[in-house]
Amino acid sequence: MVVSVLGKDGSFSGSYLPGPATSDSEILTSPLEGSQQDTRLVPQPTFSFTVHWQLRDSETARTTVFLGQCYVGTNGEETLHALWLLREAAESPNEDWKATR
Amino acid sequence: MVVSVLGKDGSFSGSYLPGPATSDSEILTSPLEGSQQDTRLVPQPTFSFTVHWQLRDSETARTTVFLGQCYVGTNGEETLHALWLLREAAESPNEDWKATR
Amino acid sequence: MVVSVLGKDGSFSGSYLPGPATSDSEILTSPLEGSQQDTRLVPQPTFSFTVHWQLRDSETARTTVFLGQCYVGTNGEETLHALWLLREAAESPNEDWKATR
Amino acid sequence: MVVSVLGKDGSFSGSYLPGPATSDSEILTSPLEGSQQDTRLVPQPTFSFTVHWQLRDSETARTTVFLGQCYVGTNGEETLHALWLLREAAESPNEDWKATR
Repeated sequence: MVVSVLGKDGSFSGSYLPGPATSDSEILTSPLEGSQQDTRLVPQPTFSFTVHWQLRDSETARTTVFLGQCYVGTNGEETLHALWLLREAAESPNEDWKATR
Repeated sequence: MVVSVLGKDGSFSGSYLPGPATSDSEILTSPLEGSQQDTRLVPQPTFSFTVHWQLRDSETARTTVFLGQCYVGTNGEETLHALWLLREAAESPNEDWKATR
Repeated sequence: MVVSVLGKDGSFSGSYLPGPATSDSEILTSPLEGSQQDTRLVPQPTFSFTVHWQLRDSETARTTVFLGQCYVGTNGEETLHALWLLREAAESPNEDWKATR
Repeated sequence: MVVSVLGKDGSFSGSYLPGPATSDSEILTSPLEGSQQDTRLVPQPTFSFTVHWQLRDSETARTTVFLGQCYVGTNGEETLHALWLLREAAESPNEDWKATR
């Protein structure tokens, strides 16, 4: 995960390549867009960002949203905790139940 | 949910007030930011957006990410299906397990 | 969903065939096992149950857990609200991230 | 987590005390009930179990369902990966949206 632009309003953008994907030729480095709380106001900001996956051979749209918080340890070390949802485009509402993981 | 700005790149912004909150004086109409797939390319676009909740009496940050798809019926009627994650800022990583619902 | 046995301790068993599956020849009616709170103590009991899916052509194990609550309206009508997790057996921990939806 | 009874059909029971709870006087060691795939048929069985939480000072029912898989490394070491849902009993369907995390 590379954050290349961080705006004054907490918005950021960058790119993402998941660890398990480095040996998976299907997933390409994909753009992310998100925002975090103002780090001048809170020491351990929450954040969220969205990744639209770039896939080599697939037409199916896949999007992941991440929602987490950046914890700062007593030694200044930062740790990210996040949960995510991944959706693949479904054909119809009948298929919707299995579209998200 | 009101979408007031829809960009050419699929980004949008607006405001959100959840239905159950209309009788709950704590939650105020809150800003949302998101994006959808290009509707000229796909008939049933996926979308995601983030709401940073404005609360009347609380200092705790709450953020919800929505991830869904807009299905268009044979009669042209649009139906949104979405799942969400809601996070409250936690004090420490030990509290992180209960921060998201 | 058919509940055929309800024990005095709140445990129950039965069978389940999801609505969208009726036109899907792969999924067979599958056994469920679960339990609910004592309905003599609480008017709107929480419940949980597990379904081990019987699939016609697949060797992959799939299991769903449901967790919900039975709400009773003022007219006595019961409504079930539940969330679920569905897991398919994965090959290795590297594949684990996509095993659950 | 202690599994004290393991049946021939893969069912098991035991007790659970979450790690973060050891410094939290509210949560008591709580009973669990679950089942796993037959370990003679699959090397890395999926499993599920339910914990009905015993709380010292609360009347509110809380239930967690876990759904996971036991991975066996090349050295024979077992690792559990699981996701969970936690529900607190809600007052009404209007409150249901926040009952699960």
